[in-house]
Amino acid sequence: MIIKGNFIYTPSLDQMVIRKNEYLVVEDGKVKTFYKALPPKYQTETVIDHTDALIIPAFNDLHIHAPQYINRGIGFDKELLPWLETYTFPMEAKYKDMDFADRSYRLFLHRLWENGTLRFSAFATLHKEATWRLMELCERSGLKAWIGKVNMDRNSPDYLCEDTSQSLQDTEELIQKVTTLQNVNYIITPRFVPSTTEALMRGLGELVKKYDLPVQSHLSENKSEIAWVKELHPNIPTYTEVYEAFGLMPKGKTIMAHCIHLSEPEKAILKERDVMMCHCAQSNADLSSGIMPLKENLDLGLRCCIASDIAGSHTPDMNRHIALSIELSKIYHMQHPEVKAITLPQALFLATKQSGSFFGKVGSFEAGYAFDALVIETEEMPGFLQREPFEKLEQFIYDGKASNILERYVEGKKIPCPFGQSVIF
Amino acid sequence: MIIKGNFIYTPSLDQMVIRKNEYLVVEDGKVKTFYKALPPKYQTETVIDHTDALIIPAFNDLHIHAPQYINRGIGFDKELLPWLETYTFPMEAKYKDMDFADRSYRLFLHRLWENGTLRFSAFATLHKEATWRLMELCERSGLKAWIGKVNMDRNSPDYLCEDTSQSLQDTEELIQKVTTLQNVNYIITPRFVPSTTEALMRGLGELVKKYDLPVQSHLSENKSEIAWVKELHPNIPTYTEVYEAFGLMPKGKTIMAHCIHLSEPEKAILKERDVMMCHCAQSNADLSSGIMPLKENLDLGLRCCIASDIAGSHTPDMNRHIALSIELSKIYHMQHPEVKAITLPQALFLATKQSGSFFGKVGSFEAGYAFDALVIETEEMPGFLQREPFEKLEQFIYDGKASNILERYVEGKKIPCPFGQSVIF
Repeated sequence: MIIKGNFIYTPSLDQMVIRKNEYLVVEDGKVKTFYKALPPKYQTETVIDHTDALIIPAFNDLHIHAPQYINRGIGFDKELLPWLETYTFPMEAKYKDMDFADRSYRLFLHRLWENGTLRFSAFATLHKEATWRLMELCERSGLKAWIGKVNMDRNSPDYLCEDTSQSLQDTEELIQKVTTLQNVNYIITPRFVPSTTEALMRGLGELVKKYDLPVQSHLSENKSEIAWVKELHPNIPTYTEVYEAFGLMPKGKTIMAHCIHLSEPEKAILKERDVMMCHCAQSNADLSSGIMPLKENLDLGLRCCIASDIAGSHTPDMNRHIALSIELSKIYHMQHPEVKAITLPQALFLATKQSGSFFGKVGSFEAGYAFDALVIETEEMPGFLQREPFEKLEQFIYDGKASNILERYVEGKKIPCPFGQSVIF
Repeated sequence: MIIKGNFIYTPSLDQMVIRKNEYLVVEDGKVKTFYKALPPKYQTETVIDHTDALIIPAFNDLHIHAPQYINRGIGFDKELLPWLETYTFPMEAKYKDMDFADRSYRLFLHRLWENGTLRFSAFATLHKEATWRLMELCERSGLKAWIGKVNMDRNSPDYLCEDTSQSLQDTEELIQKVTTLQNVNYIITPRFVPSTTEALMRGLGELVKKYDLPVQSHLSENKSEIAWVKELHPNIPTYTEVYEAFGLMPKGKTIMAHCIHLSEPEKAILKERDVMMCHCAQSNADLSSGIMPLKENLDLGLRCCIASDIAGSHTPDMNRHIALSIELSKIYHMQHPEVKAITLPQALFLATKQSGSFFGKVGSFEAGYAFDALVIETEEMPGFLQREPFEKLEQFIYDGKASNILERYVEGKKIPCPFGQSVIF
């Protein structure tokens, strides 16, 4: 496949490449070579011509609660723990109804597709059947994902609480079943320490080891939550070490959302375990949780990415999360002038290549990377204004809509609207 | 006109009214009475039935730079003064081309309509002809506005700087011409103190008096700007008092954008002059200006509203400005626990009734208020979920799109898509 256009990508936090009006050769779904002029050997091949358009790596979102998408925006008068009780748990309980789950998960996947999040890592609910439905639908959609059923067997409402061994058994069943899919892999998903018993955490740690699986959970989001963890595990010095103690922090294969209120020793552990720390700025503001010191963490060499945390946040659209991360970073800089604000290219890196690294060579257009891409057009006054590629990127990040995305590619394959408009609207 | 639906409006900062499944009688474009059941005298009349929908007052945005809309999102690597030089002034200079102005202003008005901002106060550019075009297009669109040509005769680039008497003459010409329009009124619009000479400010102050006009400008947005004003006017104690000294702060008829870094004596003057202070949170974050202490100002009895400041901000959509104002207020509360965060109903008040007060009885559904309204539907899973009106409001504010707005009314008249899709896209 040969595609022509204006490419922007970020090989590192401090490097952005702009390739204006170039040809990209994609082979076996992977980026091969860029050319300013097409060599003779390719001249008989069809070129997909997006001469004027901007082409960027698709977004990867490593912290999503798929069943909560339908609840986005609701209940932000509360902080984390009462919000869970009042809004989130009752909604998640509805996923025992497979018709509900089916419809809701289609809406969810459609929206990710629409706004250019083509790979993600998601919490489902505790329900085995509904989780499997999400996996199957994701497989059909063409999006790629890590998905885990949620494990929760304590401090949860009666209507949304598991038996420990049933939870482990359901998890193992899904771990095995998901191997029949191409686009979905299993990720161990304890909700968070307060809702998983030691026995459950230990059992999940064993599954991590047995199947060599990654883990996703929440860490240090809210001060009441941290105090609660301390109460529940008085003999373990920090929240971070609870996960570590139960084998739930496999090196280079762990996603922890929020990571706001961390001590220096905890940061050292997160660095050593190469944990992917998800900065969920919108959620943290909505639930009054606090704001991760993103730039300081990046300067420490911690592995941070930008994620949505829908529906602790109110939109899954990654461009809005990029914009807000920059804005909050500027506000932090105004209060701490010694800490520079993050820039748009840096934030783009955090939502593409950095988060993509959890899937392998994903999120950049360097040679060998999967060609996951969004083809974008934002021009509104053709004939009057001719925007540079970077200006198009700015306008897409700050005010872009689904309709600005002309095409979506995953591993070199064009991904059509999943399920068809008619099925879901 | 009788309209049925679920009405939400905010008679005061601390009061929200929810009228579920009621009938509203509108007479001569104004709200008359709500009924739970329609009295016999109305029973032969046609009811516009939006039984399931949410109906809220339309948004009013009191700080907009109409010519900059097309530049939204661009150049946020800079702070205010270099941003003006690099991005904003060159764009505004293009409005000497009437074809450019015409197309750009159609896009601008269409977007306001699309996202439910049906009244606004806008800065145009310094160009008399292009400003008149904006006024004419606004008249045709059905939206209502205060519009002023910008006055700027110092510290501006050669290509965008006026002769003082020409500036005053052009202004007076437009003041008289605009009286032929129904939907548009003139507002005196000095860009800001650094770009208007004393002679120009004095002349504008005289026009304010002669024609009994309102004024809009910028105040205390950025610390470099404030220092500059001090340098330019060493004999006037504060930035606020410069406007006051030249008759540019007519009581109850002045809009000042930003008002971030104010002293107590300045706040006292703003209160005495009943100045409408526009909180432009997104712009202030984007340009690293600082953040107005909104809640503290409201507690002091200052007249604050929420506004977009497009394109110091990156979107004109008022629902996003409401959401960000709440989020930044929560972050401020986390740092200053004694100052409560603003709530969604409070923020809605600030973007409807509070800003609407600049137009008279506008922005609420109390008796006698203009029926300016948005009919909204956010239901995604009919048959599975039945959302309460307030939940629909939350979802619209936090993740609503143009497509969620079914109808738009100004003074009881349904406003169709301005200019027709075909003209502009």
